[in-house]
Amino acid sequence: MEALLRQSKGVCPFLKKTAPGTLRTLSTTVHHSPGGGTISKLQHYARRCPVMNKGLAVQSAKLNARHYSKPATSSGIVKSLMEKKLHTTAEKKASIDNQMYRAEQRPPPPSEAKQFTKYPKVHQHAGPKPAVPETPKFDYEEFYKNELDKKHQDKSYRYFNNINRLAKEFPRAHMAAQDERVTVWCSNDYLGMGRNKHVLKTMHETLEMYGAGAGGTRNISGHNQHAVALEKTLADLHGKEGALVFSSCYVANDATLATLGSKLPNCVILSDSLNHASMIQGIRHSGAKKIVYKHNDLEDLENKLKSLDPAQPKIIAFESVYSMCGSVAPIEAVCDLADKYGAITFLDEVHAVGMYGPRGAGVAEHLDYDTWADENRTPESQKGTVMDRIDIITGTLGKAYGCVGGYIAGSAKFVDAIRSLAPGFIFTTSLPPATMAGARTAIEYQARYQGDRRMQQVHTRELKDDLISRGIPVIPNPSHIVPLLVGDAELAKAASDMLLNDYQIYVQSINYPTVPRGEERLRITPTPGHMGELRADLVEALEGVWNRLNLKRISDWQAQGGFVGVGVKDAEPVEPLWTDAQLEHAAELPKIAVDNAMEPRVMPVAAAAA
Amino acid sequence: MEALLRQSKGVCPFLKKTAPGTLRTLSTTVHHSPGGGTISKLQHYARRCPVMNKGLAVQSAKLNARHYSKPATSSGIVKSLMEKKLHTTAEKKASIDNQMYRAEQRPPPPSEAKQFTKYPKVHQHAGPKPAVPETPKFDYEEFYKNELDKKHQDKSYRYFNNINRLAKEFPRAHMAAQDERVTVWCSNDYLGMGRNKHVLKTMHETLEMYGAGAGGTRNISGHNQHAVALEKTLADLHGKEGALVFSSCYVANDATLATLGSKLPNCVILSDSLNHASMIQGIRHSGAKKIVYKHNDLEDLENKLKSLDPAQPKIIAFESVYSMCGSVAPIEAVCDLADKYGAITFLDEVHAVGMYGPRGAGVAEHLDYDTWADENRTPESQKGTVMDRIDIITGTLGKAYGCVGGYIAGSAKFVDAIRSLAPGFIFTTSLPPATMAGARTAIEYQARYQGDRRMQQVHTRELKDDLISRGIPVIPNPSHIVPLLVGDAELAKAASDMLLNDYQIYVQSINYPTVPRGEERLRITPTPGHMGELRADLVEALEGVWNRLNLKRISDWQAQGGFVGVGVKDAEPVEPLWTDAQLEHAAELPKIAVDNAMEPRVMPVAAAAA
Repeated sequence: MEALLRQSKGVCPFLKKTAPGTLRTLSTTVHHSPGGGTISKLQHYARRCPVMNKGLAVQSAKLNARHYSKPATSSGIVKSLMEKKLHTTAEKKASIDNQMYRAEQRPPPPSEAKQFTKYPKVHQHAGPKPAVPETPKFDYEEFYKNELDKKHQDKSYRYFNNINRLAKEFPRAHMAAQDERVTVWCSNDYLGMGRNKHVLKTMHETLEMYGAGAGGTRNISGHNQHAVALEKTLADLHGKEGALVFSSCYVANDATLATLGSKLPNCVILSDSLNHASMIQGIRHSGAKKIVYKHNDLEDLENKLKSLDPAQPKIIAFESVYSMCGSVAPIEAVCDLADKYGAITFLDEVHAVGMYGPRGAGVAEHLDYDTWADENRTPESQKGTVMDRIDIITGTLGKAYGCVGGYIAGSAKFVDAIRSLAPGFIFTTSLPPATMAGARTAIEYQARYQGDRRMQQVHTRELKDDLISRGIPVIPNPSHIVPLLVGDAELAKAASDMLLNDYQIYVQSINYPTVPRGEERLRITPTPGHMGELRADLVEALEGVWNRLNLKRISDWQAQGGFVGVGVKDAEPVEPLWTDAQLEHAAELPKIAVDNAMEPRVMPVAAAAA
Repeated sequence: MEALLRQSKGVCPFLKKTAPGTLRTLSTTVHHSPGGGTISKLQHYARRCPVMNKGLAVQSAKLNARHYSKPATSSGIVKSLMEKKLHTTAEKKASIDNQMYRAEQRPPPPSEAKQFTKYPKVHQHAGPKPAVPETPKFDYEEFYKNELDKKHQDKSYRYFNNINRLAKEFPRAHMAAQDERVTVWCSNDYLGMGRNKHVLKTMHETLEMYGAGAGGTRNISGHNQHAVALEKTLADLHGKEGALVFSSCYVANDATLATLGSKLPNCVILSDSLNHASMIQGIRHSGAKKIVYKHNDLEDLENKLKSLDPAQPKIIAFESVYSMCGSVAPIEAVCDLADKYGAITFLDEVHAVGMYGPRGAGVAEHLDYDTWADENRTPESQKGTVMDRIDIITGTLGKAYGCVGGYIAGSAKFVDAIRSLAPGFIFTTSLPPATMAGARTAIEYQARYQGDRRMQQVHTRELKDDLISRGIPVIPNPSHIVPLLVGDAELAKAASDMLLNDYQIYVQSINYPTVPRGEERLRITPTPGHMGELRADLVEALEGVWNRLNLKRISDWQAQGGFVGVGVKDAEPVEPLWTDAQLEHAAELPKIAVDNAMEPRVMPVAAAAA
């Protein structure tokens, strides 16, 4: 690699004009490739170059031959013999290849490249002729094993817990054995809508009448009244002209950003540093220029916007509620910057829809609570609200709405363009009619009834207060997420296992790559169904686990100067998004209201007005 | 662009060493960008270059300013004034920018680039001062409109038909109005499993017990007994060690190829030229080198394999049944080539699972019919069968299995590696328990009962014979797909509309980009439910449409020398995959058997043995 660089410097304008220090940094900085692989940033740049790329391919093929090759007939003896040769005669041949490359500034033709991996007979060892294989082939199984070994070594290998959430015993579940009950404290079915009576009734009826699946893509027999109605409901929810449903919000984010970023001429995407994997993938897949700005940092975002041509298309991609730390974006200020610099805003409300706003449309709606709560609002009065100013909103049907699927909402032309251009939308089977109908019922239910999300907020506040009073390190945030800082991958998993095995409480540990190394945590999500007794059990269990594993408490983090918001001295108190006034009536709600699938109840109509 | 190229030639090793003729070709050859946009290949190369890329960005921003910019306050007068200026004073400023670029070989700093898009006050027109906007901004709505206009112009704009398939009246559906009935002849619910009694029963029960959604990703509370059981069933179906379920097979293909291609060092992916969009996207997203070989052309594939280093990892990605023409891959011969050249095989059986093989595992299974039909088969007897030799099989739960979702099957280590590395698997909500349970019932039902897929084949044969005898141009193929060649986008849509409006028959027209321009077609998919009378109606309706629109018949295509297999003189007859012997018993099956959701029937156990 180094040699190649030196050779290339003479002809490459990029290398010539870049300072040696910068090159050194580039060669030691890691670039994450789309599938998760890592190479140096310099290699990443080099791969884009039509000249360097071929040189690298040759180098890489040589390395493979050493690391993963196996003979067609693989016995230990043959293998060791082969390796020996690779380090002697083969080495020689490699240097010849390099010479040739230097001379002609191009990779050797395929026939010569192939020669390299053969074993020239003239250099055979003395003694009995070993059973030399025809050609070394890449050892795929060994490669998979190596990848998995890496995961085991850095403790990021994942063991899935078998959790069967019981609709009639929410928030309880059984494990692999039917009689082994646990309380689930980390589901994203935030409001228990997965077992809501109205949702289930709609789904049963639709299943019976229209069957199990859609039977085709949206263009070929998979478009139906359920899709039409659901997209109308979603557009209305967000106050937009149109909406479009996808298999998931992962696909919605990926497909939409990839399509916009590749189609908009010379597009730049500005991306919050904590954005979800689906957005990161979408941006990568677009091939557009990506500029990462510091999490929720308006100054950094503005500096980056300033550096761009005002006429150049730009997308600011961010989330309302960041699911792993619970932080909330300064949405209105981002809109201001977008207006100022001619950007459009792409807001992921995945963890907020159903949970915030008078009608459950998310944080953007919540910021103009009274306007959207007003049943007599008009297109005029909606104009200029934060939700109105956002160009593109994406959301999920699989978390607070309890089903599965994702969507985008925006202007009619934008939605029609994505509908017409995004392969991830066009070439896949539609969601089943029952799923679309059930999700629509969930959205309409939550648009009319505030009890669930208010009770959820009350439970969140009470749990955070309980934990903080005991010194258990809640990462402070204004949302419904309760992240407990552990700061070590093994300890986080041990805590999760202990909770499950010794206390029948399921809280998944969150390790790399979902959170950065060193910030490992337990992530707790209370629901309206996590009543007082269950909360007391959880707090006691966490006390036990924190003691037994000797996990750091708030005071320990404070002694270290604070970390990710925990134990930070003289920190401003974080104000919750739901204000006291907005929650005022929550305490008066009948306790049974949260148990939405157990008790028959007429769906409350238009209870949204404050 | 041209000027920029001339300037760059002095410093760019790529331009210097490339012949002018090649450069000309590159600049006129189209490159399809991931999101579907098109640029010239030369521009595509240039974008990868750290030097050229910036120059292009400036050029592009200038063009945008002309084509898409709108003033901050956009009135018609301001707009036209602005355009005028862009073509006079702004033009001048642009040439200054170009000069500067030539002099320094780098784009202007942001502050100067911004100046370009402002309107210098010194050049104001005489007369009343117009309300000049601050900065021209990119006009996103205009951009979406332009993209849609292009779709309208080339007739590739898609109008979705509102089709509500009725479980109890299969294969009938209602349109937007409940009483407007049509017969669906183009669904991918090939076997009517979407309304299968057993599937629906499982789904109702699972919905009731475990609720509407999974409530999380597989790692965080979304893993359950339904996922475990479904993946076990899928692994057994394909005779593999493991399987993994995704939101869809689009996601399965995309995520798996992207992950393998980016992680395997220096990987090359050899891709059949007719591969599905999901595979094409996965390969693009991997960043790996892609080599397209001619559709089902073994000689071309071998030549391409030959040119590669034997030690280099390679994936041959292909499909068993190509859904738009019904062609079938020479799977065994591809396995031979893979073995010979050290590649692994990635086989998409999306349109074949449930439809071929004694247990419905697909075409690979079908090729060793007797071995897999034998209930006393052993791991030893399975060894070396075509399905056993395939490294990676992908399939769907949303077509012949009637539900939604997709999967991969392969070695335990391979599956575990994808489970551990693929963002498209890791970071998305699991399929709902009821979907997974329903799909598993469908797979097990079809593994035990051959009646549906045999009857489907019988109906396909009869329909093809009927149509060909009337000269209606069926594209010949050995599978269950009945593609009728139309060869014109507008005519294909007109035929589809006419069938729907005048004959109450729904057959979607298939236009670009799903098939190449000029190969537009109607694609018909018979099911076990399309009995004699419905078929007679369809054939009569097609006769009517072919006459009224004066569409080409087989003899017309023959007169032109034949096209995509239609009217080819002295062509070998195509042998169907299901042989006469394999279908022998199908005629004896009670007619009611196909109506699998209407009549209660004990599920036949182990009727698979021939």
